[in-house]
Amino acid sequence: MKKLEKITTQEENFAKWYTDVIQNGDLMAYGSSKGSIIFKPLSFGIWDNIRLILDKEFKKIGVKNVNLPLLIPESLLNKEKNHIEGFNPELATVTEVGGKKLAEKFFIRPTSEVLFGDFFKNEIESYNDLPLIYNQWVNVLRWEKTTNPFLRTREFLWQEGHTIHNSQKEAELLTTKMLDIYTSFVQDYLAIPVIKGQKTEHEKFAGATYTYTIEAMMKDKKALQAGTSHYLGQNFTKAFDITFKNKENKLENPYGTSWGVSTRLLGALIMTHGDDRGIIIPPKIAPVQVDIIELFANKDPRVKEVSLQISNLLESNAISNEIDNSNKSAGFKAANSEIHGTPLRIEIGPRDLESNCVTLVRRDTLQKYQVTISDILETTKKLLEDIQNNLFNQAKLRLLDNIKVANNYDQFKEIINSGYWAIAKFCCDEAAEDEIKKETGATSRCMPFNLDIEIQSNNCFYSNRKTDKIVIFAKSY
Amino acid sequence: MKKLEKITTQEENFAKWYTDVIQNGDLMAYGSSKGSIIFKPLSFGIWDNIRLILDKEFKKIGVKNVNLPLLIPESLLNKEKNHIEGFNPELATVTEVGGKKLAEKFFIRPTSEVLFGDFFKNEIESYNDLPLIYNQWVNVLRWEKTTNPFLRTREFLWQEGHTIHNSQKEAELLTTKMLDIYTSFVQDYLAIPVIKGQKTEHEKFAGATYTYTIEAMMKDKKALQAGTSHYLGQNFTKAFDITFKNKENKLENPYGTSWGVSTRLLGALIMTHGDDRGIIIPPKIAPVQVDIIELFANKDPRVKEVSLQISNLLESNAISNEIDNSNKSAGFKAANSEIHGTPLRIEIGPRDLESNCVTLVRRDTLQKYQVTISDILETTKKLLEDIQNNLFNQAKLRLLDNIKVANNYDQFKEIINSGYWAIAKFCCDEAAEDEIKKETGATSRCMPFNLDIEIQSNNCFYSNRKTDKIVIFAKSY
Repeated sequence: MKKLEKITTQEENFAKWYTDVIQNGDLMAYGSSKGSIIFKPLSFGIWDNIRLILDKEFKKIGVKNVNLPLLIPESLLNKEKNHIEGFNPELATVTEVGGKKLAEKFFIRPTSEVLFGDFFKNEIESYNDLPLIYNQWVNVLRWEKTTNPFLRTREFLWQEGHTIHNSQKEAELLTTKMLDIYTSFVQDYLAIPVIKGQKTEHEKFAGATYTYTIEAMMKDKKALQAGTSHYLGQNFTKAFDITFKNKENKLENPYGTSWGVSTRLLGALIMTHGDDRGIIIPPKIAPVQVDIIELFANKDPRVKEVSLQISNLLESNAISNEIDNSNKSAGFKAANSEIHGTPLRIEIGPRDLESNCVTLVRRDTLQKYQVTISDILETTKKLLEDIQNNLFNQAKLRLLDNIKVANNYDQFKEIINSGYWAIAKFCCDEAAEDEIKKETGATSRCMPFNLDIEIQSNNCFYSNRKTDKIVIFAKSY
Repeated sequence: MKKLEKITTQEENFAKWYTDVIQNGDLMAYGSSKGSIIFKPLSFGIWDNIRLILDKEFKKIGVKNVNLPLLIPESLLNKEKNHIEGFNPELATVTEVGGKKLAEKFFIRPTSEVLFGDFFKNEIESYNDLPLIYNQWVNVLRWEKTTNPFLRTREFLWQEGHTIHNSQKEAELLTTKMLDIYTSFVQDYLAIPVIKGQKTEHEKFAGATYTYTIEAMMKDKKALQAGTSHYLGQNFTKAFDITFKNKENKLENPYGTSWGVSTRLLGALIMTHGDDRGIIIPPKIAPVQVDIIELFANKDPRVKEVSLQISNLLESNAISNEIDNSNKSAGFKAANSEIHGTPLRIEIGPRDLESNCVTLVRRDTLQKYQVTISDILETTKKLLEDIQNNLFNQAKLRLLDNIKVANNYDQFKEIINSGYWAIAKFCCDEAAEDEIKKETGATSRCMPFNLDIEIQSNNCFYSNRKTDKIVIFAKSY
């Protein structure tokens, strides 16, 4: 068993804190090729839960899972120019097999719009065959230059949904519906509050008509794009010559969407909730919700007895738990539970047992509770709920506290340089965005929906042109 | 909506029947690169169920899911010579990114022993850290020359388990346990009877000490390897210099296993149960267990009413179902349900409703049952159970009927040429196996465990040398 190493504090160096906690918390190991990581049982357990829960939500609105190939033939990728330009420098390319050169190159999918385009082409004839609402849970690969575990890795896992519809209206409705599903999931399960909005032209997905996004704020106040939903219009269906006979018996190109969340969500979760003792996993997504820690079991046989009894009780009430009956010290066991982010731990020792009690310790507030054994189930349920809510509320306060209005570029720079998010009227000029990024490091995150922040100015903070567009900018992951 | 096309009969041409039913049954489409397929919702739904059920069984014995990278650096793969030789001609190789040549080549994983080897190396120090019992559900790629949907595709999906242990005994026990889990799953859920056994030296996995297998018989009597469990000894742990301090405080190499089942199981399922009307999916693995078919709904409003009522009733009893309320003919709807292999269909029409009845039709026997609406739940449950058992029993009879004893090579050739499986005493000489394959097309499938077939001869059917080894040979997929 490995020793626990010292964790750099968040204040000292947030980036170092992050790599410290993910390694000490047994979330990942570096893979044998650069920019790749290994998902250890704890992080993959979280991803497995994300998949299970989201998949159920998808199915409620008629999404069906499929699986398309990993490799894209060169000829196919060239069909959608806008799209390919965005990905070209990052495409891992298979050129040989068993030492022999291939006649055609193949790219490892960076995303699968073109593969779905080619597939859809043969699946539909008339409006009766629409919509097709498909999704796949797969790995994709983009040869990134700078990588960061979970946040930006060359290979990552995600779900990518791809749909085609009879009408623009239906496709746009699905684009919105999916953003709502992501929002509810990320907020309710991962306890990460987000700002919903639309990407500017500059930041939208290559090939999309428009892109919706949810943006989260990490503890260092940097932004992280947590999920996107794209309305593709007829861009891909025209490029791939996908047609159907509409009700007027005329050939038409269907209207498309695509949407996805990825293993970045793990990074978001860690950087939203973690503290200087390690990660904190919200109860509703935690593979292990309760650690049951046996103390001085050799001094009192009841310790093992009660520990097993509580474990079974929780298990039969669908509360996942693990017993730590190792011969490590009490301090080690507590720190070990904390560093792995288990939301709640129950410590069982001879002294407490004398008064028929055990001690519960919350991971989020570190508060301790002496609880009578007969109350254990009720208290555990209540605390897990409290922890889930507390994590969300804390993050929500932080998010709202750290968005500041910028009325001009000087204010904007001060806000960004102080690490906050800036919200401002912005003309959405693409060249202006490039300039702003170059000078301040901030990018436009989204044009927020329903955000209750008033902006008095009627002019763009940068160009001073009249505009009613409101945009959030921030430094980001 | 596509027309149903004529299916070639099994007797006429089994291979053609197979590609007919998988396409008409909407199981797959060919991908845009050769040898690749697209899993449509029905086939991926079956695979999703396989994953859910097997994963639960794995977790019961302590398996934890992880996820390792897709790419293997060339330098890493070269560490295990026996292993690499087996896969070399099939390795898809990434040599460039965005048009630029890479300094080192990367192979798309054909299997992940070497990646796990490299990972395990840093995960253990002492016997306290063992065992590691890991599994991943991923895609792998082998550039096969001849491909066949589900059975042999360049990319396929599988689970691959990789474990390391303190002792040979523990590792061997796990190898056996996993074979038992596969056997129960394939027999109980997929309704495919199998022969358990050990592969000969000639057929074992490259790098394994020995390989256990389960072998199934398709309807054309060809064999299909449905799952394997390998005892790896210290082969990989020595090659990767993985060591731990044992209880005597001495450095030792741990003992390994690996085991897997793949999307081949879908091919096995189709070729075990399908008939000339299409595929047949066993109820316990079917994404849709019951099709509810509305007939002449325009003539009696009760049709829609009862259909919805039955659908809800089944749903709330965890029986998955779909309503067909399209305006197609009764004949089309029945054929459509049959070709998609739904185990049971319920036809609801005005005439039956007059006597408060609906008609149930089994997919396996095509038997019809007129059932009072109030009995529908009980009868559906009973029939689904019957169908599951009947599919297994039919396949079991066929398996046992078609294994014949060969006492000499002439008998052997006659048995194989007639399409049967041959069971015989065999010396297990590797050159002999090559010869037999060349002359008859048959390969050794396994040395069966606990198979109740008596073989009088004491000598090898081929070399006539004395031996007590019993081997099954067959043509195979």
